[in-house]
Amino acid sequence: MSFFSRRVCVIGSGLIGGSLALALKQVGAVADVMGCGRNSATLQRALELGIVDHYSTDIAEAVQGADMVVLSVPMLAMRDVLAQIEPVMQPGMIVTDVGSAKQSVIDDARAVLGDKLGQFVPAHPIAGTEKSGPDAAFAELFAQRRVIVTPLAENSEADVARVVAMWECVGAMVECMSAEHHDHVLAATSHLPHLLAFTLVDSLARMDESREVFRYAAGGFRDFTRIAASDPTMWRDIALANSFEISLILQQYQQELEDLQRDLQTRNAQALFARFSRAQTAREGIKL
Amino acid sequence: MSFFSRRVCVIGSGLIGGSLALALKQVGAVADVMGCGRNSATLQRALELGIVDHYSTDIAEAVQGADMVVLSVPMLAMRDVLAQIEPVMQPGMIVTDVGSAKQSVIDDARAVLGDKLGQFVPAHPIAGTEKSGPDAAFAELFAQRRVIVTPLAENSEADVARVVAMWECVGAMVECMSAEHHDHVLAATSHLPHLLAFTLVDSLARMDESREVFRYAAGGFRDFTRIAASDPTMWRDIALANSFEISLILQQYQQELEDLQRDLQTRNAQALFARFSRAQTAREGIKL
Repeated sequence: MSFFSRRVCVIGSGLIGGSLALALKQVGAVADVMGCGRNSATLQRALELGIVDHYSTDIAEAVQGADMVVLSVPMLAMRDVLAQIEPVMQPGMIVTDVGSAKQSVIDDARAVLGDKLGQFVPAHPIAGTEKSGPDAAFAELFAQRRVIVTPLAENSEADVARVVAMWECVGAMVECMSAEHHDHVLAATSHLPHLLAFTLVDSLARMDESREVFRYAAGGFRDFTRIAASDPTMWRDIALANSFEISLILQQYQQELEDLQRDLQTRNAQALFARFSRAQTAREGIKL
Repeated sequence: MSFFSRRVCVIGSGLIGGSLALALKQVGAVADVMGCGRNSATLQRALELGIVDHYSTDIAEAVQGADMVVLSVPMLAMRDVLAQIEPVMQPGMIVTDVGSAKQSVIDDARAVLGDKLGQFVPAHPIAGTEKSGPDAAFAELFAQRRVIVTPLAENSEADVARVVAMWECVGAMVECMSAEHHDHVLAATSHLPHLLAFTLVDSLARMDESREVFRYAAGGFRDFTRIAASDPTMWRDIALANSFEISLILQQYQQELEDLQRDLQTRNAQALFARFSRAQTAREGIKL
């Protein structure tokens, strides 16, 4: 299905929103991109980079005339932004988001959109880098990446299809699932690893000899901790937005570390080997 | 200081030993490389790849005529290999190793080398990839990488200088420190991250929906878990060889995760942001 929009309004001009705008322009799927955010300097930069064609710091003004509004703001800002959009939502306007947790933004939408709820189609492109801001945006970010759409019962099939088509036209592979399932899976594969990496780097940075510790860090450490350079506001919000699922999977991981600690202390060579060996086999089997 | 060896004997022809042999040959620092290991097929492959010029599965035979013997075997095999070398160690022959933990191999050397202990110079190149075996070896592995030498009181200055020179001639930056300090620092920057990655992948792989979980894994997860594809035997041995230091730093990390878990459950936005923010700043400050 092809996609064309006469005006997309991107609220929040960071890596994801900016890259989507660039990608839609590159394939000729949008006539005009309106940027919106709280920081004029960032929006001005997005304009200079050709990400947006105009911008406004006023949400009600920015969404005027847009047939697709994309919320690319930290999770905890979603409710406030949705509340500001609601009074000016026209029939035919679709609002979608790119949030890394889905149940919380759906709760936000239910709380503030009233009978316009059906126009909100929740989505999450599983793409990104540890960088943030408009300068990090690039049109190819979504090529061959997965986007998960978690439709509401209130959504029309046509609106869901239009959001799917938007992501497909920038090269993504789109799948639909429930918000609950999305949050459960992403807690394991994305949210927990980010929190573990942040926690490790923070822990080592607070060691007395941290400077020296990092001095002897090599490639394995670099890869393992790359995601710890991610935006702290964005991740605070994801941690809170999906705290229930993250807490559950973290609990399971903490149990695994207790087993590991016990195996180290009892020098259980067989258990250590079995664990590492299972992990190696699983890791080599992952197509990433 | 320049380095030349008429014969280097590499025991264990994996990534590190193989790469060292290739690098020494590339800079013309060795006339002849003798390979040694338990697996003839692997040694034959190392011969085909030009890593070694001859090989033997007999240690006493392999070290004959070598002025530098490099032990590149899993940590728990060190003592047995050192015991087999001892009877045929000639004056002037230096034995060194590439083990990722230093106190345990020094204990091994003290236990079996007797009055030849001074000829053993412990070292650790902080380099490697998640791959293993002779096919993974490449001459550039040590360029700009750190090598830590942890000299014994029994070593002659000349022998230590010769091991330093060998690593410098393949492009490494060499530093000396105590074995205790080495094991403390490496537990934090290398051993713990590997064990955390193994444990995460193993944990997720045993979830009922593991296939689906891995299906939605993206770049962050790929980088975070790359080291979980490392050789399980090698890492079982490192875990045991440095179990005391790893256990200590793991304990500290477990405490940090308890704090994280508490902050998630109490929705402590400030504490989460502070942690992620400190980590981001530290991670961006690391030159890797």
